[in-house]
Amino acid sequence: MTHIRGRFRKPADKIVAEYTASLPFDRRLYRQDIAGSIAHTRMLAKQGIISNEDAKKIIAGLESIRAEIEQGQFEFNIEQEDIHMAIESRLIEKTGEAGRRLHTARSRNDQVVLDTRLYVKEAISVTIKGLRELQRALLDQAGANITVIIPGYTHLQAAQPVLLAHHLLAYFEMLQRDIERFTDGLKRADVMPLGSGALAGVAYEIDREFLAKELGFSRVNNNSMDAVSDRDFILEYEAAASICMMHVSRLAEEIVLWSSAEFDFIELDEAYATGSSIMPQKKNPDAAELARGKTGRVYGHLMALLTTMKGLPLAYDKDMQEDKEGLFDTVDTLTSTLEVFAGMVKTLKVNAGTAEKAAGRGYILATDLADYLVKKGESFRTAHKIVGKLVRYAAEKGQSFDQLDINIYKRFSPLFGDDVRKINIKTSVAARDVVGGTAPRRVKQALAKARRIVEKD
Amino acid sequence: MTHIRGRFRKPADKIVAEYTASLPFDRRLYRQDIAGSIAHTRMLAKQGIISNEDAKKIIAGLESIRAEIEQGQFEFNIEQEDIHMAIESRLIEKTGEAGRRLHTARSRNDQVVLDTRLYVKEAISVTIKGLRELQRALLDQAGANITVIIPGYTHLQAAQPVLLAHHLLAYFEMLQRDIERFTDGLKRADVMPLGSGALAGVAYEIDREFLAKELGFSRVNNNSMDAVSDRDFILEYEAAASICMMHVSRLAEEIVLWSSAEFDFIELDEAYATGSSIMPQKKNPDAAELARGKTGRVYGHLMALLTTMKGLPLAYDKDMQEDKEGLFDTVDTLTSTLEVFAGMVKTLKVNAGTAEKAAGRGYILATDLADYLVKKGESFRTAHKIVGKLVRYAAEKGQSFDQLDINIYKRFSPLFGDDVRKINIKTSVAARDVVGGTAPRRVKQALAKARRIVEKD
Amino acid sequence: MTHIRGRFRKPADKIVAEYTASLPFDRRLYRQDIAGSIAHTRMLAKQGIISNEDAKKIIAGLESIRAEIEQGQFEFNIEQEDIHMAIESRLIEKTGEAGRRLHTARSRNDQVVLDTRLYVKEAISVTIKGLRELQRALLDQAGANITVIIPGYTHLQAAQPVLLAHHLLAYFEMLQRDIERFTDGLKRADVMPLGSGALAGVAYEIDREFLAKELGFSRVNNNSMDAVSDRDFILEYEAAASICMMHVSRLAEEIVLWSSAEFDFIELDEAYATGSSIMPQKKNPDAAELARGKTGRVYGHLMALLTTMKGLPLAYDKDMQEDKEGLFDTVDTLTSTLEVFAGMVKTLKVNAGTAEKAAGRGYILATDLADYLVKKGESFRTAHKIVGKLVRYAAEKGQSFDQLDINIYKRFSPLFGDDVRKINIKTSVAARDVVGGTAPRRVKQALAKARRIVEKD
Amino acid sequence: MTHIRGRFRKPADKIVAEYTASLPFDRRLYRQDIAGSIAHTRMLAKQGIISNEDAKKIIAGLESIRAEIEQGQFEFNIEQEDIHMAIESRLIEKTGEAGRRLHTARSRNDQVVLDTRLYVKEAISVTIKGLRELQRALLDQAGANITVIIPGYTHLQAAQPVLLAHHLLAYFEMLQRDIERFTDGLKRADVMPLGSGALAGVAYEIDREFLAKELGFSRVNNNSMDAVSDRDFILEYEAAASICMMHVSRLAEEIVLWSSAEFDFIELDEAYATGSSIMPQKKNPDAAELARGKTGRVYGHLMALLTTMKGLPLAYDKDMQEDKEGLFDTVDTLTSTLEVFAGMVKTLKVNAGTAEKAAGRGYILATDLADYLVKKGESFRTAHKIVGKLVRYAAEKGQSFDQLDINIYKRFSPLFGDDVRKINIKTSVAARDVVGGTAPRRVKQALAKARRIVEKD
Repeated sequence: MTHIRGRFRKPADKIVAEYTASLPFDRRLYRQDIAGSIAHTRMLAKQGIISNEDAKKIIAGLESIRAEIEQGQFEFNIEQEDIHMAIESRLIEKTGEAGRRLHTARSRNDQVVLDTRLYVKEAISVTIKGLRELQRALLDQAGANITVIIPGYTHLQAAQPVLLAHHLLAYFEMLQRDIERFTDGLKRADVMPLGSGALAGVAYEIDREFLAKELGFSRVNNNSMDAVSDRDFILEYEAAASICMMHVSRLAEEIVLWSSAEFDFIELDEAYATGSSIMPQKKNPDAAELARGKTGRVYGHLMALLTTMKGLPLAYDKDMQEDKEGLFDTVDTLTSTLEVFAGMVKTLKVNAGTAEKAAGRGYILATDLADYLVKKGESFRTAHKIVGKLVRYAAEKGQSFDQLDINIYKRFSPLFGDDVRKINIKTSVAARDVVGGTAPRRVKQALAKARRIVEKD
Repeated sequence: MTHIRGRFRKPADKIVAEYTASLPFDRRLYRQDIAGSIAHTRMLAKQGIISNEDAKKIIAGLESIRAEIEQGQFEFNIEQEDIHMAIESRLIEKTGEAGRRLHTARSRNDQVVLDTRLYVKEAISVTIKGLRELQRALLDQAGANITVIIPGYTHLQAAQPVLLAHHLLAYFEMLQRDIERFTDGLKRADVMPLGSGALAGVAYEIDREFLAKELGFSRVNNNSMDAVSDRDFILEYEAAASICMMHVSRLAEEIVLWSSAEFDFIELDEAYATGSSIMPQKKNPDAAELARGKTGRVYGHLMALLTTMKGLPLAYDKDMQEDKEGLFDTVDTLTSTLEVFAGMVKTLKVNAGTAEKAAGRGYILATDLADYLVKKGESFRTAHKIVGKLVRYAAEKGQSFDQLDINIYKRFSPLFGDDVRKINIKTSVAARDVVGGTAPRRVKQALAKARRIVEKD
Repeated sequence: MTHIRGRFRKPADKIVAEYTASLPFDRRLYRQDIAGSIAHTRMLAKQGIISNEDAKKIIAGLESIRAEIEQGQFEFNIEQEDIHMAIESRLIEKTGEAGRRLHTARSRNDQVVLDTRLYVKEAISVTIKGLRELQRALLDQAGANITVIIPGYTHLQAAQPVLLAHHLLAYFEMLQRDIERFTDGLKRADVMPLGSGALAGVAYEIDREFLAKELGFSRVNNNSMDAVSDRDFILEYEAAASICMMHVSRLAEEIVLWSSAEFDFIELDEAYATGSSIMPQKKNPDAAELARGKTGRVYGHLMALLTTMKGLPLAYDKDMQEDKEGLFDTVDTLTSTLEVFAGMVKTLKVNAGTAEKAAGRGYILATDLADYLVKKGESFRTAHKIVGKLVRYAAEKGQSFDQLDINIYKRFSPLFGDDVRKINIKTSVAARDVVGGTAPRRVKQALAKARRIVEKD
Repeated sequence: MTHIRGRFRKPADKIVAEYTASLPFDRRLYRQDIAGSIAHTRMLAKQGIISNEDAKKIIAGLESIRAEIEQGQFEFNIEQEDIHMAIESRLIEKTGEAGRRLHTARSRNDQVVLDTRLYVKEAISVTIKGLRELQRALLDQAGANITVIIPGYTHLQAAQPVLLAHHLLAYFEMLQRDIERFTDGLKRADVMPLGSGALAGVAYEIDREFLAKELGFSRVNNNSMDAVSDRDFILEYEAAASICMMHVSRLAEEIVLWSSAEFDFIELDEAYATGSSIMPQKKNPDAAELARGKTGRVYGHLMALLTTMKGLPLAYDKDMQEDKEGLFDTVDTLTSTLEVFAGMVKTLKVNAGTAEKAAGRGYILATDLADYLVKKGESFRTAHKIVGKLVRYAAEKGQSFDQLDINIYKRFSPLFGDDVRKINIKTSVAARDVVGGTAPRRVKQALAKARRIVEKD
């Protein structure tokens, strides 16, 4: 653990065994491996390739091994190289000749793909649950603050007032696409590879459809060489996870900004912020920052596997063993991040007053003034120029729109009338009354629609 | 062009204008931009937001601008910053007041997303066509060499004989998944963003569904802030392109290997290989190598945009302007690579004799011998050990399986009988008679199924 | 330009020629190529490998070709594949038999590496100049605002007051390391490869040291196979550029934050910010955002070339042709970004009042109170706990340290005396009087030291 | 270990504590942390900031904690968040008030950077040792096979014969550059950050130079804000490691190719290759493949940290905690890979006969024929054309150069004389008699020079 490698010499075969062993990380797949072996055993017996007695012994043996592992009684030995051999060796210890028949009509190459596919399918399901949970938190905050107006930013400069709920619903949409992407990827993960053998298929009358059904797969693969050399389903998970973490990093950035004294739009719950012993009032948004930082890690795993797979000839090359650690860490990172964010979003407090005050600052209603002129007949580009001049004039005088006399307005365009006074952040928000716009009735519709989607699950 | 920047000083605003301008690359979107503006104009007129006369002038103006561009008569001026302003400025020159109304109820933020979405939708369609073309070439080669046996490799060591057609069909499967991925991505690209304005929606009674229909989109976006800040559809194209280029890089690697004097399984058509003036017989697989190399470029673009988008607060930030060049280059790289590969695969010649000779070398049939024993009742693990000893014996004697006396076989296991002699690369291939296996009848079925898929398009 | 590739079919050889040609981008290397050829010609003549007359003709020819290119009179023809053949063909047109002798004792493989090394050496020099320019701008701002105090942030929460100059000098340090890295990389770029031939060296009595001297290289490479397959010097430039762009992205982030209405610490010069026609007062920090976004592009190029080079067997493979476009774009991006930032930093205005007000907010002096107690004998951990309780008390009362009665202080620790009142942001800053600390005298020393470094160049 | 996260709910603070804790990975830094604390304590006592008795207690306490950890008696508790707090808490348990004084004039921000810098300095040293070891193995193989000729490849097509030793020395050069890069990086890692405090420096009269000397650093940092926010030294290690792994991946690719039955240039020692139970004669180059695959992982870590650091405002942000795991894994991966490769290269057997036979195949001497003509007065381009025609003729006749009648040669150029017969792979190799060329005397010189470099260490 504590020393940098390479200073104490071991015999070559030990060094190589340690270098090439996957057991330290693939032991995590024990459940999948045992489930796969049980289904395989049932199929072999059904097809008469092994006897029913042997099958019974094998299955009982595998189940007891699972129990041993889960009770911490299983001795993992790096000389067994990987989880598959570790379990099979123990099975042979327990069942003798029967155990020696387990691997009939199977190869490590199709076995390892099976285990990984089972894992990815489960990971997708857990990930989607985590995404739903975060969506719910966003919807709850949106609902609880349905009237709160904040500045809408472009270039981190206030541009137009928007509803906070509208802003939060933008993240709902991102996560919704994430869910769709993971769901789409599931189609390609959900393919049963057993029976592909080392690369050419197996020379036994096996029943692949039975295996698929037993293991909960929708279909079997079409080509054995592809089956053992395909890692697309992992890459696809990692690509979807990268895009998802990018979304999370944007939300994290906003949480960090909004928690700053300068913005002060929100306050994080104590569980999600860290004070120091000396500045207990300081609320460092550690979890948000860390999630933002972990984006790099997830991108890195994607890049790693893309690089590893580049230029590999068919069918199986040992390079592919590198697929697992990055996958496991991606799944752990993403699902724990989603869990933390769901809690953080759900529990944060909105400082509605500060936010709304910020939303009213400056000449944020300039666009509304231009729209006012357009509606009175001015062309868009000319209206914009007129308001531009008006804003410049007001800024030089240090006055807000409110403070300008109506005659001043008229100096810039005769189309201005007294009704220009009615424009404020509420009317501005209400005016964006289009599908997808920030008008309260549209946002409420969007919120209701989003809730229905979330509740369907 | 030829000098490294930074040695001749320009005034600050010129330097900044050049730095921030997107016109040099986004001019490529002129068709999409004009199509979007025409649809927008129609909608504005239909809704009574602008007059029909103005609409007619605008549309005629836009069409003449398109003609000017396509005839090379349009003057692009970097001071116009981007393609949108370049076209609108010219329109105002041509149509005066009418042109000044074009941008009503629109913002550059939703406009640029519209153009990019139109581009990506077209890119997906062209990419899928390219993938189909390469699939066809693979199927043609598979069909033309349906009986050819080659060594199937693991670890670049011959492991079991397989049909060349089976090997080629593995690539068919990869490309099929690529097509599915691009098709899945299309769903998320196929969303009409106009009407989202700068970020909050627009304050006009527009008809977004009409716009969607005019422009061939299936639906409109749900949230205006998401609409202007979402670049997922580009990332998703680039992720699918990265996985696809990874597949191509594997095929490229095999083409390079197989073209070497050492393997000599194939010969590339002259158009796809380069000799030197001095070694005209040498056939450098330049195009295959270059494609393998270009994998890096496509990965790089994916990584670039993921990095760019990381941690950006909503809604629009100028950083996002970096989305386009990488996208364009990804599309160009991928589609040209697919085109070149379709031609290269279609025209290559297979050296069936060399390949089959290689497939018969060594103890490639060891697995078949083990299967033989298992079928006679031996357990899998024991059978493997027996054959292992037999192989070691034969290798020490320098004899092939053929050359070993049947009594030698029997020394290793009494289960061996004379029928062991019948095992050869043909029986070996034929024995893998499972769905997805390399047995000729299975491969023919797979080929027929693949052809049906390809012909459906 | 405007259409996605692949819809109009061309003959295979045209498609492949276009796919494999490097002329569209390597023409940029014409100066380097001609300089290399002239030096090579001189060496050939000196060694008696070609005649002096031939050498004269060749050199005159090359010089006239350079003039043709620089005057825009050279016709680039994609059939010549690359800049090397384009120039040599033209030379043969001009000089006949003499021109045919130019390539004696040379190969395209060593020629292309030579050109790229000459380019990288120049790029490093221009990059370092750009870094120095930005350093100067930082020092100018630091000097001009030497007394301004701003909040020092951790977690984007104000933690301790610091001098703005101290903050800016942190960037000076980063850029200084960048300069060191580029300088270190130069050692490995500065190696003359000519004479390595295709891969094995050349069979002529050439004088490689003469070539090195003529072309301004410090040394020649040791191994011809390494020479033609080495692209480390490009990767190293790109890695240093990536780290440098990361630094720039941090400064960009701060410029964006500080330009926001919420922070309002600085105001960008008009040349470096963009208003909209309608909100002329809004100052979008476009250039800073774009630079932040371009970080992705530079990372992407690094990743691209690392991927391309992975797993390539010696010596030259066509994949390596992919080295140039990413390099060129990296150099262009980095040098233009540095130029823009130097101007932007130099011209920005500091809102000293706003910044200092922010620096005094909250309990930013809590650490100073704890240090006060430690100096009176309290242990560090206990002092921190005491101040923590005091802060919590004050926060609940809504009082600042100033507003707390001295007896309140004493309630938390008897060590507090009246002198605790003297602690303020100025004393806090002054107290960090260690090498590298923010005390004004230390910052002035650091500034002076930095100026000496910059002026040395 | 075995379940995907997120299915069992824990209280929020537990979830967050687990999410943000670094103890599970930074405990690896215990030695560095304790060394840093001991030096810090000595400095505090020397400066009179704490008493000598306290210092003695603290140092004794820290030493006993180190012993506890190394004997496996230390209880790591995730609630202590990181290794720094874990050790400090235990120290306070052991020494009470004295322990509470350890952290005087220090912050976790400068402490964590110190520990990481100590780690990186050690990592660089171990890495360079590993590189030297692999260089030695290459030199041993080169020396042992100094006369063996193999085909030199471009585009994986035999181009010119070269000495195997020359080929191996190309890798020596790559590793030499790697060593230089790590050594250059060391300059920037070798900077002592303690005294920078949280970000502003500390308010005590500390002696930073004393700390630097105690801890073996060459200098102290210039700016406290830079000190706590700088992770360049990690990025630089990872960038150098990426380039180094790229080199290793190229060697790995060649080992895989050369181990194939098709090339058959080398045989790996049993310790470095894996047979299957059934094909004991098969020698899968697992370790080489795995190293090639691990290139992706190292690239991924570089990309991850570059992404994490992008756009972070000064000074410390929690994102930076993500720096360590990738670094640790990079160091482990690189050093173990170098160790394995040193052994693998040292023990592989060269099949000189097969390699030389391959080197004589085809028209590999075509370049030599052209050089022959050039030396007789023909121009380079014309000579190449003549030989091109000759090769084409010979290839059509199915004859090698040897088999062609001398009159045939003369038909293509009258300059051919009987001495053309003397050209063979030995004369070809010997003719490349330039610095860096493959001529035996040059290769021997290069080998001797390389040995001197390696032995200097």
